[in-house]
Amino acid sequence: MGVLTMKIINNNICAPQGFFATGIYAGIRKNPGKPDIALIYTPQPAVAAGVFTINQVKAAPVILTQKHLKKGKLQAIVVNSGNANACTGKLGMVHAEEMAKVAATGLHIDPEQVAVASTGVIGVTLPIEKITHGITKAAAQISSAGDAAAQAIMTTDTFSKTIAIEIKMNDKIVRIGGIAKGSGMIHPNMATMLAFITTDIDISQSALQQALSQVNQISFNMITVDGDSSTNDMVLILANGKAQNNKINSVDDPHWKIFYEGLLFVCTHLAKQIAQDGEGATKLIEVQVSGATTPEQAQSAARAVCRSPLVKTAIFGEDANWGRIASALGASGAELDPFQLSIDLDNLPLLKNGTPLPFEESLARKLLMQKIISIKVDLGKGAAQATAWGCDLTYDYIKINASYRS
Amino acid sequence: MGVLTMKIINNNICAPQGFFATGIYAGIRKNPGKPDIALIYTPQPAVAAGVFTINQVKAAPVILTQKHLKKGKLQAIVVNSGNANACTGKLGMVHAEEMAKVAATGLHIDPEQVAVASTGVIGVTLPIEKITHGITKAAAQISSAGDAAAQAIMTTDTFSKTIAIEIKMNDKIVRIGGIAKGSGMIHPNMATMLAFITTDIDISQSALQQALSQVNQISFNMITVDGDSSTNDMVLILANGKAQNNKINSVDDPHWKIFYEGLLFVCTHLAKQIAQDGEGATKLIEVQVSGATTPEQAQSAARAVCRSPLVKTAIFGEDANWGRIASALGASGAELDPFQLSIDLDNLPLLKNGTPLPFEESLARKLLMQKIISIKVDLGKGAAQATAWGCDLTYDYIKINASYRS
Repeated sequence: MGVLTMKIINNNICAPQGFFATGIYAGIRKNPGKPDIALIYTPQPAVAAGVFTINQVKAAPVILTQKHLKKGKLQAIVVNSGNANACTGKLGMVHAEEMAKVAATGLHIDPEQVAVASTGVIGVTLPIEKITHGITKAAAQISSAGDAAAQAIMTTDTFSKTIAIEIKMNDKIVRIGGIAKGSGMIHPNMATMLAFITTDIDISQSALQQALSQVNQISFNMITVDGDSSTNDMVLILANGKAQNNKINSVDDPHWKIFYEGLLFVCTHLAKQIAQDGEGATKLIEVQVSGATTPEQAQSAARAVCRSPLVKTAIFGEDANWGRIASALGASGAELDPFQLSIDLDNLPLLKNGTPLPFEESLARKLLMQKIISIKVDLGKGAAQATAWGCDLTYDYIKINASYRS
Repeated sequence: MGVLTMKIINNNICAPQGFFATGIYAGIRKNPGKPDIALIYTPQPAVAAGVFTINQVKAAPVILTQKHLKKGKLQAIVVNSGNANACTGKLGMVHAEEMAKVAATGLHIDPEQVAVASTGVIGVTLPIEKITHGITKAAAQISSAGDAAAQAIMTTDTFSKTIAIEIKMNDKIVRIGGIAKGSGMIHPNMATMLAFITTDIDISQSALQQALSQVNQISFNMITVDGDSSTNDMVLILANGKAQNNKINSVDDPHWKIFYEGLLFVCTHLAKQIAQDGEGATKLIEVQVSGATTPEQAQSAARAVCRSPLVKTAIFGEDANWGRIASALGASGAELDPFQLSIDLDNLPLLKNGTPLPFEESLARKLLMQKIISIKVDLGKGAAQATAWGCDLTYDYIKINASYRS
C-alpha cells in the first residue's frame, strides 16, 4: 500500500490536466454579485461515477444525470443555484433536458455527455430562458480557473469549498480537484449537497465508482447539519486520463489504494468544510466513536450525536451538558453498555464506565470556546469505530431558514 | 361499540374516586416559586400498566419502576423535577430506591408499590437529602387536589398539562384523569415526557396494559419537538376499581373499547398540549398523512414532517415553503409516488399529483399566521393514514437550550 505522498495545490477542479470551468450570473438569484450558473468541461471524454440522494422525491436533474451516467462517460457538468428544479412535475424534466442540450450545443458535444445539477428552492418552475441564455454565455467563456464555478454553486454557503491535491504514481503525477456546496438540508445519505470532483487519472469506470462509493460512505455521508436529506444531492467525479499513468483497471491494482487515499483526503476536506459552514454555524463538531459492535453502528452513534438539536444548542451555548450526548447515543440504535460508556470532551473525561466524573466547569467551558469541538465516545461493546462531523445550532440557523424564500 | 358519551371534568388526576396527590417545593430547583416533588396516591391498591423509553441509557427511576411494575399493582407515584437521575452510576439506583422507600414509609405502604420518576438534567447526582425530606413532607400533606402535582412535574414547560373526563359504563360513571410534562427532548418512542393517568375503572392488568400500549402508539408516540428521545420517558396508569363497574377482564369485553376511546381522548389531549408547549414553540403543527402503504409508514411520514427543522423554521417564519415538506416526506422511508404526491396547507392545495399549483402568497401567509397549522398529505400509494403533532422551531428553542444548566 505504501505511504501516500501528497501535496495540496491550487485551482481546485481546474488543477487536473485538461479540465476547464466557469461561473457566470444568469439572473436566477436576486443578487447580481454572485454567479448562479457553473459549467465544468473536459475536451477529452472522461470516465465518470456518481452517488445520488436516496430521497424518493428526486429532482429532475438527479433523474437526468443518473440516466446520462449509465453510459459511464461525461464531458461536462452544468449547475444552477437558486432553484432546485424539484417537485416541478413533467416540465421539470423538460427543463433539465434543455439545460443539457444547450450546454452541449455551446461546447459542441453530445447532450448525453452532460450532467445536470440544481440547488435552491423546491417546487418553483425554473426561469428556463434566463438559464439557457446563461449556459450559452458560460460555454463561450469557459476558462482554466476553477474559482468562479465554486462560487456559482453556493446558496446560503458563506465561503466556497475547494481543494486540490497531487499524488505520485510511479513517475507520473495524478491530480484530484474538488468543489462542494452546503449548507442546509445536510444529512447523511446525501443532503442538499453538491460536490464535483475532477481528476486526470486513467482508471476504469468500475474502479472509479468503487473508489467514490467507498470514500463517500466515510466522508460526505458522515456529515449532518440539520438531519434533512434533500431532493438534489449529488457527488460526481470525472476522470479524463490525461495524467497518463498505467491505467487502473480494478481495486486490486495497488495504485487504486493510493488513488483511494487521495480521493478520501479530498472528500473529507470538502465534507468538513460543509459541516463547518452549516447554516448559522459557529463551530465544527467532530465526534469519534469507538467500542461499537459494527462499523455501521459506530456511524449511527456518531451521527446521532452530531444530529441532536440538544447537543448542538449546548455546544452553541458552550455548556458541557454531556448528559445530552449520552441520551443521543442511547437513542441512536447502536448497541452500548451503559455501565461501560465513556465520554470525553477533547482530553477531559466527563463520564467513565457509566459513572460521571467531577470536572472543572471553567476548563470545560474553555474547551467549548474553541472553533473545533472534539467529542470522544467509547460505547464499551466492541472494536468498531467511526467519525462524524456536524455543527452547532444557533439563532442564525433559525434566521436563515425562517425566511429562505423571501 | 356504541357512541362514547364523555364529559370533561375538573381536578385531573384527583378526579377519579380514591386518588390523592400533592406537589411541594423541596429545594431541588433554584426557583422556590415552583414545586419540584409530586406525589400521587391511592389507598386502595391499583392495577397498573406502563410504557417506557426505549433509549438504551435508561435513568435509574425507569429501571426501578419497571421492576416494581412486574407485580402489576401500584399505590403511589413519586416524581422529582430538576434532576433526571440518569447517567448517575450505581449511586443513582440507590437513590431511586431511597425515594420509593421514603414515600412508602410516609404513606404506610410497601416500597414495591411505589413508582419513581425523575426529569431534569442528566448526569448529576441527586440531592438526595433534600429529596427525601421533601417526600416525607409531601406524604404528610397529600390532598384531593391534582393541580400542585401537575405543577411539580414541569421543567421548561410554560403551562401544566392536565385533563379529566368521565364516561358512562351502563349505570356506572368511570373517570380518567391525567397530567403530563414536556417539553424538550420530545420525540416518538417516548421522550423526556412523563405522563401519569389515574382511573377508577375496575379492569384486569392485561386489559389495562393493552389499552395503554395501543393508545400510546397513536398519541404520545406521534408527537415530536426536537427528535431527541430521552433517558427518562414514562407513562403510567393506575386503575383502582372504585367506580365499581363490572370488571373488564379482556379486550373482547365491549366496555374495553369504551374505556379505550376515553383513554385515547385523554392521552391525545395531553400529547397535543406537550407538542404545543414544545420549547420555544409559537405554533402547534398537525400533519395528517393519507395514501400510505401501511399505518407504520403513514406514521413515519407524518413524524418526518413534524420533525424536519426546515419545515419547522419555515412555519415559524410563516413562509409557505412546501418543498421542504415534500423533501421530508421523500426522506422519511415511507413509500410514496412522486407523481401522485399531494400537499395541502389547511384547505389550500399547494401540490396536486406531483405538480405545483399556483397559490396566493398572501392567503398562504394568513393560514400560517394561525396558532394551529394543519398540513394534509396524500402519498398516493395506499389506504393507510396517521396523524402526528409537532411545533415550530424558534429563536427561543435555542435560547432555552443553549444554557439549560446555567
